Amino acid sequence: MSTPLPLTFIDMLAAASARNHSLLCVGLDPEPSKLPLHWRGDASKLFDFCAAIVDATADQVCAFKPQIAYFAAQGAETQLERLMAHIRQAAPGVPVILDSKRGDIGSTAEQYAKEAFERYGADAVTLSPFMGQDSIEPYLRYAGKGAFLLCRTSNPGGDDLQARTLADVDGQPQVFEHIARLAQGPWNSNGQLGLVVGATRPQEIVRVRAQAPHLPLLIPGVGAQGGGCLGYCASRAGRANGD
Amino acid sequence: MSTPLPLTFIDMLAAASARNHSLLCVGLDPEPSKLPLHWRGDASKLFDFCAAIVDATADQVCAFKPQIAYFAAQGAETQLERLMAHIRQAAPGVPVILDSKRGDIGSTAEQYAKEAFERYGADAVTLSPFMGQDSIEPYLRYAGKGAFLLCRTSNPGGDDLQARTLADVDGQPQVFEHIARLAQGPWNSNGQLGLVVGATRPQEIVRVRAQAPHLPLLIPGVGAQGGGCLGYCASRAGRANGD
Repeated sequence: MSTPLPLTFIDMLAAASARNHSLLCVGLDPEPSKLPLHWRGDASKLFDFCAAIVDATADQVCAFKPQIAYFAAQGAETQLERLMAHIRQAAPGVPVILDSKRGDIGSTAEQYAKEAFERYGADAVTLSPFMGQDSIEPYLRYAGKGAFLLCRTSNPGGDDLQARTLADVDGQPQVFEHIARLAQGPWNSNGQLGLVVGATRPQEIVRVRAQAPHLPLLIPGVGAQGGGCLGYCASRAGRANGD
Repeated sequence: MSTPLPLTFIDMLAAASARNHSLLCVGLDPEPSKLPLHWRGDASKLFDFCAAIVDATADQVCAFKPQIAYFAAQGAETQLERLMAHIRQAAPGVPVILDSKRGDIGSTAEQYAKEAFERYGADAVTLSPFMGQDSIEPYLRYAGKGAFLLCRTSNPGGDDLQARTLADVDGQPQVFEHIARLAQGPWNSNGQLGLVVGATRPQEIVRVRAQAPHLPLLIPGVGAQGGGCLGYCASRAGRANGD
C-alpha cells in the first residue's frame, strides 16, 4: 500500500470549502474581555473558549484562524498547541491559518516558519510583505504550506502606506496593487501565496482581484461573533468577489 | 521619601550610552547552528548562550536586543523570560529592545504590546509600519516605552517595497523616507519612536536622517560576532551618521 501524499493547504481549503459548502474562515481571537468574568486569569480557558467555537462550527467552515497574540500575551503557548491539536481532531481536513503576521529575514524568518509549521502544525500563516521577497521565501520552503500576505487592511491606518501611489512601477499602481501583482507573479513560485484584503474595502478587493486573479483571498472584518472576527476564504476560483 | 519615576527608554539609552561610552546594541540571536553541538536540542542552552554574551559585554553596550523568533521556534519562551531577568540583573540600566517586528491592529496589537512590555518587561520593541498609525499606537500607550519602526532594511528584498517612489506624497519620497517622515512627525506624539535602518545602506541612512533628525536609529548589520548580529543605537543626537 502506498501512503497518500499529505494534502497541500490549497487542496485542503478547496476540499473543506466544497464539503462544508462554505467560504467562511472562523477567527479564534480569545479577547480577554469576551471571556466569562470568572474565566479570566486562567490561561486554560483560552483553550476552552476557542475549542467550544471550533466544536460548534467545524462543519460550517472552510478554515480556522487562531490569532497567536492572545496566547502570547498570557504566556499560554501551551494552550495554543492544545488548540491546534483539537482542531485537527474535531475538524479533520479543515486547514488552520496561524494569524501571526510575522515579517523578518534569513535565519530569523526560518525560525518563525519553524514556529508556525513545525511547533504549531499550522497549514498556512499570515505574513507582512514589508521586507520583500526574501522575508517570504523561508515559509515557501515548506512544501504545500500556505502564506497569506497582508495586502490591503481594513483599519484606518491602512491608508498611511498601502493606499499610496507608486511613481516608479508600471501603471503607477497603489502599494496594495503592487503587492498583489508581486504575489500573483514573481513571488509565487509554487502557488503557495494568498492575500489579506479587508472586507471593508469592496472596491479595492476588485482591484486586488484584477492584479491577482488566481490567489486565495482572506477577507477579515465581515463581522464579530463568538470567538472573534470572521472572514471569508475564497478559493482560487475567486468566488468571494463574484469573479 | 518619594519614589523616583521609572526612566523612559530614551533616557535609559542615553544614560547607558554615556556610561559605557558606547553606541553598540548587541543582538542576542541564538541561531541553533552557532551553539556548541552538544548543546543543541536543550532549550535551556538558549539562555546560557545569550547570558554569556550579556555577561561579557554588559559594560560595553548601550542596549541589548534579543530576537524572539529563536525562542518561539523551540517553545522556549521561559528561557527568554529568564534572559530578560538576567539582563536586568547583570546589566542594570541597560535598556532591552525586544526584536519581534510585530504588526497588527486594535486589540491584537494591545496583546502584542502586553507580551513585550508586561510579560517580557522589554523597554522597547521593533515594529512593522505596514498597517499604519493605528497599528503602532497601542504600544505608545505604555508611557516611556520605545518602538523602532522598520524603515529601510538591509536585505535585498528591502527594495521590493521600501525603495519604491511615491507619486502622491509631497516631494515624491521613497517609501522609506515617507515612513521616516511619519515617524518623526505625526506618529510620534510622545517622542517614543525610533527607526530601523540597515547598516548596508549608508547613503540612505543620510536620507533617513534628513527626514527624521531627532529619532534614535537602530542600525543592524554591522557585523556578526558571538551571539548574533550587532548594530548601533544612535542617541537622539544622531551620532551614528556623523550629524
